[in-house]
Order: sequence, then C-alpha cells, then structure tokens
Amino acid sequence: MLRAMLAVEAALTRAQAGLGLVPRAAADALDALDVSGFDLRELALRARAGGNPVIPFVADLKAAVGPEVAPYVHRGATSQDILDTALMLVARDAVALILADLDQAAARLKALAAAHRATPMAGRTLTQHAVPTTFGLKAAGWRHLVLDARDRLAAVRRTLPAQLGGAAGTLAAFTAFTPEPADSDRLSGMPEKTADGAAPAAGADGSRAGLDGLVAAFARETGLARPLVPWHVLRTPVADLGGALGFVGGALGKVAADVLVLGRTEVGEVAEGDGGGSSAMPHKSNPVRATLVAAAARRLPGLAAVLLGALVAEDERPAGAWHAEWEALREALRLAGGAAHAAERLVAGLAVHPDRMRANLALTHGLVVAERAAAALAASLGRERARTLLQEASAHAVQGGAPLAEAVAALLPPGTPLPFDPDPTTYLGAAPALTDAALTREAAP
Amino acid sequence: MLRAMLAVEAALTRAQAGLGLVPRAAADALDALDVSGFDLRELALRARAGGNPVIPFVADLKAAVGPEVAPYVHRGATSQDILDTALMLVARDAVALILADLDQAAARLKALAAAHRATPMAGRTLTQHAVPTTFGLKAAGWRHLVLDARDRLAAVRRTLPAQLGGAAGTLAAFTAFTPEPADSDRLSGMPEKTADGAAPAAGADGSRAGLDGLVAAFARETGLARPLVPWHVLRTPVADLGGALGFVGGALGKVAADVLVLGRTEVGEVAEGDGGGSSAMPHKSNPVRATLVAAAARRLPGLAAVLLGALVAEDERPAGAWHAEWEALREALRLAGGAAHAAERLVAGLAVHPDRMRANLALTHGLVVAERAAAALAASLGRERARTLLQEASAHAVQGGAPLAEAVAALLPPGTPLPFDPDPTTYLGAAPALTDAALTREAAP
Amino acid sequence: MLRAMLAVEAALTRAQAGLGLVPRAAADALDALDVSGFDLRELALRARAGGNPVIPFVADLKAAVGPEVAPYVHRGATSQDILDTALMLVARDAVALILADLDQAAARLKALAAAHRATPMAGRTLTQHAVPTTFGLKAAGWRHLVLDARDRLAAVRRTLPAQLGGAAGTLAAFTAFTPEPADSDRLSGMPEKTADGAAPAAGADGSRAGLDGLVAAFARETGLARPLVPWHVLRTPVADLGGALGFVGGALGKVAADVLVLGRTEVGEVAEGDGGGSSAMPHKSNPVRATLVAAAARRLPGLAAVLLGALVAEDERPAGAWHAEWEALREALRLAGGAAHAAERLVAGLAVHPDRMRANLALTHGLVVAERAAAALAASLGRERARTLLQEASAHAVQGGAPLAEAVAALLPPGTPLPFDPDPTTYLGAAPALTDAALTREAAP
Amino acid sequence: MLRAMLAVEAALTRAQAGLGLVPRAAADALDALDVSGFDLRELALRARAGGNPVIPFVADLKAAVGPEVAPYVHRGATSQDILDTALMLVARDAVALILADLDQAAARLKALAAAHRATPMAGRTLTQHAVPTTFGLKAAGWRHLVLDARDRLAAVRRTLPAQLGGAAGTLAAFTAFTPEPADSDRLSGMPEKTADGAAPAAGADGSRAGLDGLVAAFARETGLARPLVPWHVLRTPVADLGGALGFVGGALGKVAADVLVLGRTEVGEVAEGDGGGSSAMPHKSNPVRATLVAAAARRLPGLAAVLLGALVAEDERPAGAWHAEWEALREALRLAGGAAHAAERLVAGLAVHPDRMRANLALTHGLVVAERAAAALAASLGRERARTLLQEASAHAVQGGAPLAEAVAALLPPGTPLPFDPDPTTYLGAAPALTDAALTREAAP
Repeated sequence: MLRAMLAVEAALTRAQAGLGLVPRAAADALDALDVSGFDLRELALRARAGGNPVIPFVADLKAAVGPEVAPYVHRGATSQDILDTALMLVARDAVALILADLDQAAARLKALAAAHRATPMAGRTLTQHAVPTTFGLKAAGWRHLVLDARDRLAAVRRTLPAQLGGAAGTLAAFTAFTPEPADSDRLSGMPEKTADGAAPAAGADGSRAGLDGLVAAFARETGLARPLVPWHVLRTPVADLGGALGFVGGALGKVAADVLVLGRTEVGEVAEGDGGGSSAMPHKSNPVRATLVAAAARRLPGLAAVLLGALVAEDERPAGAWHAEWEALREALRLAGGAAHAAERLVAGLAVHPDRMRANLALTHGLVVAERAAAALAASLGRERARTLLQEASAHAVQGGAPLAEAVAALLPPGTPLPFDPDPTTYLGAAPALTDAALTREAAP
Repeated sequence: MLRAMLAVEAALTRAQAGLGLVPRAAADALDALDVSGFDLRELALRARAGGNPVIPFVADLKAAVGPEVAPYVHRGATSQDILDTALMLVARDAVALILADLDQAAARLKALAAAHRATPMAGRTLTQHAVPTTFGLKAAGWRHLVLDARDRLAAVRRTLPAQLGGAAGTLAAFTAFTPEPADSDRLSGMPEKTADGAAPAAGADGSRAGLDGLVAAFARETGLARPLVPWHVLRTPVADLGGALGFVGGALGKVAADVLVLGRTEVGEVAEGDGGGSSAMPHKSNPVRATLVAAAARRLPGLAAVLLGALVAEDERPAGAWHAEWEALREALRLAGGAAHAAERLVAGLAVHPDRMRANLALTHGLVVAERAAAALAASLGRERARTLLQEASAHAVQGGAPLAEAVAALLPPGTPLPFDPDPTTYLGAAPALTDAALTREAAP
Repeated sequence: MLRAMLAVEAALTRAQAGLGLVPRAAADALDALDVSGFDLRELALRARAGGNPVIPFVADLKAAVGPEVAPYVHRGATSQDILDTALMLVARDAVALILADLDQAAARLKALAAAHRATPMAGRTLTQHAVPTTFGLKAAGWRHLVLDARDRLAAVRRTLPAQLGGAAGTLAAFTAFTPEPADSDRLSGMPEKTADGAAPAAGADGSRAGLDGLVAAFARETGLARPLVPWHVLRTPVADLGGALGFVGGALGKVAADVLVLGRTEVGEVAEGDGGGSSAMPHKSNPVRATLVAAAARRLPGLAAVLLGALVAEDERPAGAWHAEWEALREALRLAGGAAHAAERLVAGLAVHPDRMRANLALTHGLVVAERAAAALAASLGRERARTLLQEASAHAVQGGAPLAEAVAALLPPGTPLPFDPDPTTYLGAAPALTDAALTREAAP
Repeated sequence: MLRAMLAVEAALTRAQAGLGLVPRAAADALDALDVSGFDLRELALRARAGGNPVIPFVADLKAAVGPEVAPYVHRGATSQDILDTALMLVARDAVALILADLDQAAARLKALAAAHRATPMAGRTLTQHAVPTTFGLKAAGWRHLVLDARDRLAAVRRTLPAQLGGAAGTLAAFTAFTPEPADSDRLSGMPEKTADGAAPAAGADGSRAGLDGLVAAFARETGLARPLVPWHVLRTPVADLGGALGFVGGALGKVAADVLVLGRTEVGEVAEGDGGGSSAMPHKSNPVRATLVAAAARRLPGLAAVLLGALVAEDERPAGAWHAEWEALREALRLAGGAAHAAERLVAGLAVHPDRMRANLALTHGLVVAERAAAALAASLGRERARTLLQEASAHAVQGGAPLAEAVAALLPPGTPLPFDPDPTTYLGAAPALTDAALTREAAP
C-alpha cells in the first residue's frame, strides 16, 4: 500500500507536469523516491488521528522532497483520491497473480479431465453413492468453476479505475489554482452547454487544460481505467472486486471440498501429492492445501458481503463505509491469492487412484446401478412388478451382501436372462461426452 | 415455486414428446394442469421427510394425471433437475420485474439529474460540509449505480440455464430406458471419440435422439439458456444471482442513505412525495420507502454471502449447501424486488428543495469555500502566510459567526481586494459537466 | 405474528384497565377477539404504505371493537411498542420449542455417549485417521455443544422484555392524557429528584399511576420481563437472540457434519434411522435430517450478523435497522427450530455400527497407533533411531499393506519383543474417562 | 501470537515439570527464551507447508534449547493445543484492554447522562423529529449498551480455557510415554469405572499423575480456565468471543451512529472534541473517532458470523473451519479494540450543545408536541373534531411557518384558551426519570 500510495502521488504529479501545470522537476523528484525512507509503523500510528494514512504520508512526502517541490505534491487531490487509486493498483497487481494461478490450475485440470474422461467412479449425492460418474467429468466441472471465477475476476480487473475527484468529487480544487472566470463548463468531448458557474479546467501556470485531460492523463500514468465520473461514493469497483473474489473463494472451495472427501482415509481416491506433516504423528500426510483453500472459502463470502454493503455510502464521503473497505478488500485479495496458489499446487500434484474408485463402486453390492436395473425391469416386467421385485432384491443385497444382480436373478423365473448389465463401469451415462463438451470451453478473451 | 415446478415438469414432458420419447398425450395432460389442485401446505409438510418438495409433488402430479400418463411424468429426471430449473424460472420472472423498476428509476433519475445539473448544494464528507457540489451530480451518481446494478443483473438473467442431469449429473437415466448397446458416446456437435461405455441417447419408444437434443429441447421449452454441462454442483447461476442481487441492495441502499440524510428535519433538502404516517404522531411524514430500501440493503449482502458460500458444494449433490440456497435465493429476490419497487416510487415522487440547499450552503459562514480561498490566498500571499491567515479567519468565522470573506478582509491590508469569490454557488468545480458526462451513459444492451 | 400483535394490544389494554386508566370493558372486548377476523394478506399489502404492519392492524382492530372501545385501543402506544413486544412473544414461544428439542437431544446423546464411552473408532484430523478415540467421547462432545447452545438460548429467553416507550421512548404519550402539571418526575422506587419538566404518570380518568406501574403491569400481562428502560434503540434482546440462534446453528451443524462424514457410503459407522428417499434411486437412504441441519447451519450465522449489525440503530428509531430485524429474527427462529427438531430426530434414530468403526480402524495397517509406537520405540531405541526405524516401517506398511507391527518387527533385531501394543482399541487415551467427565455436566438451571 | 505460543510451550513444560514428568531444567530453559531469537517472517513462510505455524515454531524452539532439552519440548502436545491456547492468551489480554476502555467509556457516559438528564432535544424517528426527549436519556442508553457489551465480553473472558488434548483430543500421547498397563481409566475426582482399555495417566519417569492433574496444572500455568473436556472441535470459546466482539461492534456502532447524526453540520448538537483534519480543507473538523467506530461496526458482525460458522467443525480436527478462525478472531479483537479505544476517546471529548438542541426543537413550528396537542384537543373537543382541527393547523404550521399553537388558536372559537402547553421542553415524558433509572445499573460483577 505504501508503495502504491507513492506511485499514485508520483503519477498525479507526472500527469500535471505533462499538462504543464507543475514543473517537470517536481515529477522527477517524486519519481526518484522509494518507500525505504518512510517509517511504516509511524505512519500507521499517525494515521489514526485524521482517520486515514494519506495525511501523515503526504506530510512526510513533502518533507522528503523539500520546500521547493512540496507545493506541487498532492496538488488539488484529496486523501481519497490517493487511497482509492492506490487500492486499485494493489488490486490490479494482486489480481494478476490470482489470475495466473487460476489459469494454471485450469490448464492442469484440463489435462486431468481429459485423461480421466471415462475413469469410472461413484457419483455421490447427499454423501451416498448414487449412480456412477467419471473422474473426468468431476475434474471438468472443477475447471468450469475455475474458469467462471477467472472470467469474472479478469473482467473486473480490466475495469479498475483511477480515482480523481478532489474534496467532494467535483474536481473543484483542480480549478482553484487560477481564479480567472471560466469560459466553459464542459469537459472536452462532451456536448457543450450554457455556462452555469462551473469553473474551468485551468493550470497553475495559466496553461489551459481540460479537467478531463487531467483525469485521462492521471489514469494513463497509473495504468488504470479512466472513470466516467469520480467514484468516491459510487463504489462499484470495490463491490465488483468483492463479488469476484468471493466467487473465487467459493469456486476453489468446491474443488477443495471434493478433494477433502475423496482423500479421506476410507475413500482414498485422490491424494495431495505431498501432504503436510503432523507434529504428533510422523506418518501422517494431511491435505494441507485443500484445507487452506477451504479455510479461505469460509471467509471470502463474508468479506464480499462487507464490500457489497459498503456500497451504502452516504454523502460525498461516508463516515465508515469507505473506511470499512480498506482492510476488507486487502484481506480478500490475500485470501483469494493464497487460495488460488494453494489450489494450483493442489491440482498440480493431485494423485488419482482409479483402482480405489473402481473398488469403491463395488461397495453397494451393485445397487449403484439400481436406476438402470429399475428401467430395464420396468420394461420387461411392468412398472409395478419391477418396483416390488427390485425393492426385495435390494433388501437382500444390502443385508446379505450378495450382489444385486444375483438377488434379482433369484427372484426372476428360472432361466430368465438378467435384463440389465450389472457392471457399474458401463453405466456412465453421458459423462465422457459431457467431459469433452466441458473441455471445449476456453477462458474468455 | 409450485407453479414453476409444474411448468418444469410439463416442459420436460413436452421436450421428450417433441423427440418422440413419450406420447404427445402425456405432454398435453401436464399442460392442462394448474396449481389449484395442489395442497401447498401439505406438500411443504411432506417435503421434510425426503428433504425436498419435489418428491411429494411428483407423487401428487402422477396421481393427478392418472395411471396412463404417470409413467411419462418426471421421466429420467431427478428432484434437483426440477427444483433448480424451477428456481431459475422464478428468478427469471422476478428479475424481469426488478429490471423494469431499475430501468424506470434510472429514467426518472436522468430527468432529475438533468434538471438539477447546476443546482448548488453542500458536498458533505464525513457528515461535514466540505465544498459545494450539485444535486444533479448526486442524482447522476445514483443513476450510475442503478445502471451498474441493472447491467449486472440483466447480464446474469440472460445466462440463467435450465438444469438437466439426472441422478448424478451424467444424464444416465435418460439413456436407461433402452438397454440396447450404444453406438456412440458423443453429443452431436462434439468431436467423435472411441466408445467407452457411455450409453446412447435413445428414447423409450426406440426413436434415436441425442441427449444434447433432449437438453436443448428442454431448455427451449422452459425458455432458459442451454447449459454446456449440468450445473448441479457448479452453482455459478445461483452465486451470480446472489452477487448481482447483493449489488442491487447496495446500490439502492446508497440512494436511500442519501435521501435519509437529505430529508432529515434539519436538512430538509429532499422529501419523499408522500411519506408514511405514524400511529402516534398525526403530522409526521416518514421516509418510508427509503427506510424499506435501507432495510433490504442491510440484508442482501448477507444473503449474497450465503449464495457465494453455497458454491462450496461437495460431491455430485451436497448435503446442505444446495438446500441452503432455496430460501436464501428467494428471499434475496423478494428483498431486491421490494427495494427496487420502493426505490422507483421514491425517486418518482422525490421533492427537491433548491432553496433549502442554498440556505444550508450558508451554514458554515463561507467556510465551504475555504479550499478556493486557500488556493487564491496562497497565490497572492504565499503558501505559509496564506495558511496562517486563513486559520485565523476561519476561527473568527466559526466563533463569531461572521462570514469568512469578512474575516479574511479584516486580516488583509486595508484596501486589498478580496482575492477570491466567496459565493459557494460559483464553486461547483466540474459538477455540471460531470453530470452531463454521467448522463451520456446508457444501459448496456 | 398477527396473533402475537393482537395479544400485545390486549395486554396493553388490560394493563391500563388494571390501573383504572381505561374501562375494563375495553380490555374484555379485545380479549374476546381472535385473529380469524383479520385478513393477513390485506394487512401485509397495506403495511408497505406506512412501513409497518401495526398501522393497518390497529385500524382494523378499532373497526372490529367498534367506536365505543376504539379510543382505548393502542392508547399511548407507538407501532414499535406493539411490534417489538409481539416479536418477543413469538421468540419466547419459538425458543421454548427449540429448548425442548435441545433438551431432548441432549438426553438422547447422554445415553448414546454412556453406551459407547469405550467404543473404539478412528479419531480423524484433516480428514485422515490420526489416533483412536471413542464414539462415546464424540457423542459426549455433541452433547456438550448442544448444552452450550441450550444454556445460551435459555439465558436469553429469560431476559426477553416487553417494550413500552411511546413515540420516542419517553413514555410521554402515557402522560399526555391529563394535561395537569406534574408533581414529580420520578418513577416509583427510584430516588427522588427535583422536578424538571418531566410529566407525571397519570391516567386518562385522573387516577394516579406511576408510569413504571404501567410498564410493570404491561410486562406482567405479556409474561415478558420488565425492562429497565425502553429498548427501542437498545437492541440487546434481538442481538442476543441472534447470537444464541447463530450458536444453535453452529452447534447442531457440528453434529450434522460428523453424521454426514460417518454415514458416508465408504465409512458407514452411523446411519440415520430412516433416511429420506430419492426420486431417482429407489434403494437410496439419504441423511435427510443431517442435511437439513447442515443447511440451516449455513444460514444462521449470516442472520446473526444481520441482527448484531442492527444494534447500529441511529436516533430514537432507525430508518432501516429496525425493519431489517423483523424477517431476519423470524427466519432465524424458524431455521433454528427446524434444525433443533431435525437434530433431535436425528440423534433419536441414529444407528451406530461399532463393527464398522473397528473395521475402519484397521485401514491404516496399524499406523493409527504410530504415535504410541513412536513413544515406545524412542524409550527403547533412542529418539533418533526410533524415528528412522518408524519411518521405514511406516513406508513398508503403507506400500506393502503389511501391518505396522510386522514391519517394525522385521526391522528390529531378531528376537526383540515388540515394544508396543499394536492394537488400536487399547490406545484410547483418556477417551472413556473424558466421556464420563463430560457427562457429569448438567444443563444450567 | 509468537510470544503467546512461546508462553504456552513454556507453561506446558512447567506443568509437566511440576508433576515430575520432565526435568525442571527443561522448564527453566524455555522460561529463559524470548521471541527475539525467532524469525517471524520465516516462520510464516514455513507455516504454509504444514498448514500451521506450530510445526516450524517447535522445530526452531527445539533448536534454540539444544538437544538435551529438546525431547521435553512440546511433549505429548499437538499443534492445536499450542495454537488454541495461544489464541486464548492473546484474546484474554486483548479483551482486558477492551474491557478497560468500555468501563472508562461507561463511566464517562454516566457523568454525561446525569449532567443532561433533563436537557431537552428532539427525539427523532425515521430521521424526522417525533417528540422531545433528553440528551441524558440518549447518553444513558449508550451507556446501557456499552455495559451490555462489557458484561457479555467479561463473562466470556472469565471462561476462556486452556486447550490440551493431544492428536485427537484423547490425551493419549500423554499416556504413551510409559507403556505399562493401566490400572484405572478414571480422571481423579471422577466416579470410578471398570477399566476398559483407557491408558493411565502416568509420567515418563514413572511417577503417577492423573491426566486431569496435568490439564489442571497446564491451565494454572497459563492462567486460563480449566476445560471440562478438550474443546478442539467444540469451539464454544471462539464462537462466544465472536458473538461478544460482534456485540461490542454493534453497541459502539450505535453510539457512533448517533454522534454522526447529531454532529452533522446542520444539526450541530454534539461535536468530537478534536476532530481529524482534512488534507484538502484546512478548516474541517471531522468526526474521525465516530467514523473509525462505524467502520469497525460494519466489519465485526461478519467476523462473528465466520466464528459462529466455525462451530461446524467435522471430525476431531476439521480441514478448514479451525484454520478460518485464526485470522478472523485476531481481526475481531483488533477491530473491537480499536473501536473501544476510539469510542472511549470519543465520549471523553464529546462537546454537547444544549443551545443547538433547543434551537432544533423549534424547527417544526411546534409540531414536535403534536402528540400532546392531539391528546389535549381530543379531551376537550372529542377525538374526531380534534383530529380534523389538528390536521388543518399542522398544515398551516408547515406551510406558513406559523407555530402550531397559533394555528390551533386561530381555529378554536375566539377566546378559547389553548388547551395544551406548546413548549417542547416541558414535554419530556419520563425521560429524566428513565435516565435516573438507567443509571442505577452497574456493570455485572
């Protein structure tokens, strides 16, 4: 944040220098600074008095550049301009890291899904075996969610705007340096209106420069998007980040939840490549990455709620809603970043055990294909008789441990061929084809 | 929901009839039903036993159509197919109402902003007068947020998909009616693969129909989007709805928060056209609509968090995450719907009082233009002397009640012309131009 | 709510009648009413105009009792007095049901824990078998949490207060019926102060009655606690309910989470007595109750957050915070009530399978006692040699499937007796004793 | 946290030394350490691999004390024992600071309320003037909430327990050092049971020591409460902290919300003693403390929700729920601590302006006593005529700016004395007496 705040002040001065509003030397002086000269803890302590860190930061900044340059530092800006823009820079850079991890995770999941498009495993609903599916379809689903998260986050990143509005979002301070009467109230490119009191966009040295030119230059210098209007109390960028980061948490949390289930000692169908150790049990290999992702997934929706709630920002700067965003946004970025990295490592090293999947498919004595049996028996015996027979056979299978096929055969007239294929691995429905279909999707451009 | 569930079952049967998989008469029988024959309370009570309302609903539905048609009801579907698709229908229709209200609110705000683009009022930060702004810019900002909410919600609405996956998302049940061996595992349009056990998409009466054809027909019959893959545990549509509805709450909450501030007895700058009465005070006119919006804005982010959190859905159907969505989504739709309607009525009837705005601008004895004064004095006296003089003059103005301009003049050398314009209504910065700029934005197509 | 609102109006009139402030006949008239004469839907629709349902309800109430009694209806009260007190009545009654279910669940868990105090099962951490524990200790832990929830909720229930404050919490309206000058500003029982303008507590018919007498009588008539001061903007009762109901959700959610894990097809250590059916798979028995509890546990913390957040209630009646409580509180009561009932049924019917627990303990080839082996080997071989040997033996056990004891024995000098007991069922630590200790706890009085 | 973790390890070794289980010199060695020798950043980075910071910390700790003492470090403990107990130490100390600030704030509010028990001001509902109240009653209400927060938090603090359970909460590792057969499974003080496989509580050097003795000694050494059972997955202490800290946020948020309203430029009834400055407007005095409190109040309920949700912790150590607590709890402590401190400073320096309160009471042209007028007119004219007359008079007053009393008088028959006192400052109801009543409350012992 400190580095970003310095970058923003420098960008503002560069933008003004480029328009001839302040000396180029002032911009050079700011560009020459780095954060090593600032005392972070002191800034934090002094920040409480004024309720934001920009006030002491600008004081130190002016001291650092000396009295000649000081008047051109932070010129016309308000604390919020600096803090909001700095938060956007931090978000932009943090989100880039998150996107890279999500892209990498999606690529690895594509390979995993393709390799296992027809690897049979139990489909589980409400914790119970339902019908077979394939691991490929599961992995393709994970990828689908990861891409959903990625696309939402990438879309938000592209829109992150610089903030420049001055004390109350009217840009008035940028017009105040030259008191001469305005001749126009328009931003260049806007349809002209009759003048109605709006001050002109003029520089300290008398050169004419549209305010929109200043905003555009500032946005360009920061590399952020140029906002249509100041967004000091129109907190869409922050709310959008909150929503997208909350989505990242949920999407990765789904992957983690599945890995945690499938990796249970009793299930054993997947394992983290190199699990975390335990301080008490030397042999234990914990699904540490899935655990960290799951933890982040428990926190991110709540942070998203704070950031959505911060849209409710009264006046031209709210007393609390804005301040609640600062830590919540950074926490959300950190958690999503940690989760994305852990998830990428998780899928990169995931060990898949098709043999255990196949073995587990046998646990229900064939009942995992009861749905197929029901359809086939209904076709040959009629719906009611089929239902009765299947219930009886299922009870036998569950209690006696005999396979369903045997139990059904025992109830059919002697010599009747079994009207269904009892092999779970041939009852995959469209799972392989759906896997293929899912993998045709690419990340949004 | 009941109506939607019935519509979904009918759509499914129509889709299958269209493909020749079930008799047309079955579809006709379902289309002829309406919800009046169902006992809602009984269904709710019976729903608890199986954990979802589709089970008793389908039982009643089969009873309603009689034994001939019953076998073709709910054929191949799982409860989640019906419930999810029904929720999407409810969401689609509820969101349409919300969008209409948001569009109407945006239109009214456009007129309001244009009319007041240069109406001066105090810009307030952290509850205190800062510098002047215009009511037009404030209203344009409200519109900006309303459009942001509208665009996000409209984008989600366009993507709401039908759900068809069967017991575990493999569509296997739809292949189970004909046990003959499959000749292909591909969905039409997908690159062909070697057969690997996936059953074909075949109908009960022997006609051939691709499963993707069935999904497409089902989506078409419901009017919802066709999903790339079943999304039974890829809850993007629900999470997206949650995020967008949470945004609606926040955006409208901003409008309400401002109206509540500006309508305070002491501020009096706006008023709801016809406020709510009070049971105890006959004269009182309450900002009822803003209050209802503010209440909804306190709840929607939490519901968004629940829906984002429900992305964390283990297995092929989670034990709890899915169930937590049902009420949360509907509650979010109801709250956003109520808030959008109240907000539309609120802005439609909003009374604006420019005289009170102007009067309030005078409350700080001219200090509301201190920023302009500081810049002007710095230009003429130098930064340090200007600061000292302005602090002294400000103290006089605050304590003595004299206007800032007089206090400054008294401190300047006799005869010095006041170097700044003390009129707050001419220090609007770019507010009118920014209003114009904001109003160039249209709703996304 | 409607029934409760009627009860509150009746209680208020009875309280005033008891103090001779209104005719007894008025109280009788209200007591004779029931809710059958009110049109709930109409009330709901008319409630939006004034922002609360009490306004139309009182209008209908006055119409119902006729013009003679009408002046004594709702006398001196404000809408909030009625609505808050009604919510407390609803909460009191709903919480009684919840407490009964929690008590019953705790009793069943006590029996379950005692019966299985020494039933060995795998202790699982981060989804992996760690060391053995007992099912009794697990069930005792569930009971511990259920009692924690019960005690917190019972403590809140005892404090639920009636609300009586009038328009802004000063009780002024109750003094307004007699305009004669007050002779005292004190509530009886309070230390006397010099009079300073506070109106006396006097009745409409001239009889003297302390306002505190009225509040006390009102509280008595409702059966709720008597508040020290009106709590119209001191929302402790609602926030406390939110916190306690959120805790109920979390506590029961823990039980459900464990049941869902232990009942998985692969684990099979417990099962719901009669699970819910599936519309697609006739044989399936779903953990429906655990699922419903888990779903409620995902929603209750968010509702608790709304109710804690509603403490932030500006002025003498906030514009939104109060209104956000109404549905959130009732939703929390419903969800907690449903969860408590489902949890009670769940534990009442829980099938426990010690044989599966024992079988699962064998899944790690003895590694589940690695902790004991490490301690014993360290004592006999020294820490470093023990570690190396155990790592090697563990690797053999995991890969080769041989029991740990055999693998260790093969690495020890021939003839060395195995220095540890490899039987997991004798490595229970203090689990049985801790179970006993936990069961000594009783519900708070 | 690092300091607390070191303290916990030292306490564990001291406890074992006191029971003769490890050499006293080991305890002395740990007591001699401080955190200066540990590299916090390195620990954090290494913590990710194993999913918790205790693993690398214990490694460094063993290295720091050397090979002789190392075997006695962390003996029998699991990472969670250390981390949970350390979190409780941090919570205990942080909460002590919060309680001190809350107590101090309550004391200041008591003085404020007593001084202003009869200071008239407008009671405001839904942002509008309703009837008069007193500032004393408002301040007494603030104190009431602060005491509610304090009492809840103090009660939780007294119960914060040490955690000692070993790998899965059975304390087995503490029994594992001596493999000899157990002669009892009971904790001392528990009723004796037949032995059933539970290992005895015996020390490494053969001395007998009940496990409960160890837990008690450990709790004593940490100064925390002794738990009835290990709470590794019974997260009541953390959930209780979450709830109480959430309440603190809400309670202080109410104070802040009122201060922010009352301090608005237009209202001016209170002001922070020394507000924060503005970087753009030299004269501005911002309600910085109320703002910081309001920001914290927006975040604490969400953190409470995370901590309540973390009760849902499967198995003997959950994969995620536990990990989600670490930061959330510390964040909640920090936010509540900052808010309590800011709130104390806020009320300590609060400037109260009775003159502005009195002036604002006049803003409604006397309508602020309409309730009193209505009652008096109804008594003299009958209810219906009174209502009509008052509506007409109110309309005149609002539109024409004439006081209500004059408007009423003009509508009464000439010569009729005004049947009510139009002075708002004598319509305080029981506000002063309620203030007195509220101030009789003391903090819970």
